[in-house]
Amino acid sequence: MEITSRKNPRVTHFKKLAASAEYRRASGEYVCDGEKLLREAVQWGADIREVMAVTPPEATLPASAVLHTVTREVLEAASPLKTPQDVVFTVGIPPREPVPDLRGAIILENLQDPGNVGTVLRSAGAFEAPLVVLIGECADVYGPKTVRASMGAVFRQRVAVMTHAELAAALGGVPLYGAALRRDARDIRSVDLSRAAVAIGNEGAGLTPELLALCAGTVIIPMGPRCESLNASVAASLCMWERFRR
Amino acid sequence: MEITSRKNPRVTHFKKLAASAEYRRASGEYVCDGEKLLREAVQWGADIREVMAVTPPEATLPASAVLHTVTREVLEAASPLKTPQDVVFTVGIPPREPVPDLRGAIILENLQDPGNVGTVLRSAGAFEAPLVVLIGECADVYGPKTVRASMGAVFRQRVAVMTHAELAAALGGVPLYGAALRRDARDIRSVDLSRAAVAIGNEGAGLTPELLALCAGTVIIPMGPRCESLNASVAASLCMWERFRR
Repeated sequence: MEITSRKNPRVTHFKKLAASAEYRRASGEYVCDGEKLLREAVQWGADIREVMAVTPPEATLPASAVLHTVTREVLEAASPLKTPQDVVFTVGIPPREPVPDLRGAIILENLQDPGNVGTVLRSAGAFEAPLVVLIGECADVYGPKTVRASMGAVFRQRVAVMTHAELAAALGGVPLYGAALRRDARDIRSVDLSRAAVAIGNEGAGLTPELLALCAGTVIIPMGPRCESLNASVAASLCMWERFRR
Repeated sequence: MEITSRKNPRVTHFKKLAASAEYRRASGEYVCDGEKLLREAVQWGADIREVMAVTPPEATLPASAVLHTVTREVLEAASPLKTPQDVVFTVGIPPREPVPDLRGAIILENLQDPGNVGTVLRSAGAFEAPLVVLIGECADVYGPKTVRASMGAVFRQRVAVMTHAELAAALGGVPLYGAALRRDARDIRSVDLSRAAVAIGNEGAGLTPELLALCAGTVIIPMGPRCESLNASVAASLCMWERFRR
């Protein structure tokens, strides 16, 4: 199907998917940009729904995907990027998982920067963290900036969105360690993380008392005396690396 | 001195500092935003030049700093942020260092995202990398996004900007390892990094052949088989952590 008008309802749909987390939840879809992400989506068997492309994409689309040929003007209207590449597409949000196993999970509480959330997804894939859990007011996993920063990890990384109460119920016997700057926290190099979950807090405020109350203890990434903190996605990546590297 | 007009030449100066790396180099100054960065600048003895504030800042300014009281409208015009906090200020760019010692340095080649460069500065402070070297087309250390991502590390972290030829001349006997995804690279956990420098390449393309030619060898951060890469600032932070954690 060819689309030549920026006012086509499919274009409006793409724009709303980029702009609104609520609309994404209601539609059960999100929007992605570029050939590289499309190749990743195909490779990892993501549920590709609609593809808008100026020229037919090189990747072999699944039979269920609908391909729209569009003008560049239409592509620019449909894409969340100011200067999009040649393709923009939608993917179905996977169904919510039943109560997941939290061993090895990385837990993000109130992580608000979409670049940070996407970077954590990417590192989780690299270091085989089986699950990323979002608690509280985190950036939406399916927002365009998160998806882009994840570099395709969003298509293969298991993610769960939970309340504090759901987290408490799901923990079972899994020890949860909160990454904290407190000097009484245990050195992360000395803690057995193999069957544990680690929680990372908000960029400015760290973990809330509510989350810390669920923790078996706190861990610290030791730093030089002149420095007070790390970027939240760096801290999360280091925690996952410490579990993976042993 | 009170400034009430957005067309005041000092406001224009601030705006140009935020917008142009060339203007920053010519002026020898850069611009920073917010009380938190101002406190860091004071704490680390940065060369604070001019401060624009709606209400007098809490931090004790050095005697050499000029304080302008401004209206909120003027502050918004002078700040690189859309919704600035109560203060915006300029800092002198430190003089270029003579040929630096590269032991323990982290070397960034063509790292183009200012958030990544700032995050590397922040991690370098945390993990006591004595020097960050920028080679090729890196984001400017003194651009507003880099400064913000550095969370104040820009005021205390030693930084050198070098050409490939200058890097080659400065290396001396210091072994340089390039972080690469090649499977023949040595596992970073097995390499003695204590007196070495590590190079991280561009977000998409990695290290250039020109930089790799200067390397004593390549190192890899091992990852799970399903993943191809890490965010560049995460990779750099992990390399610094591996040196620091021993």
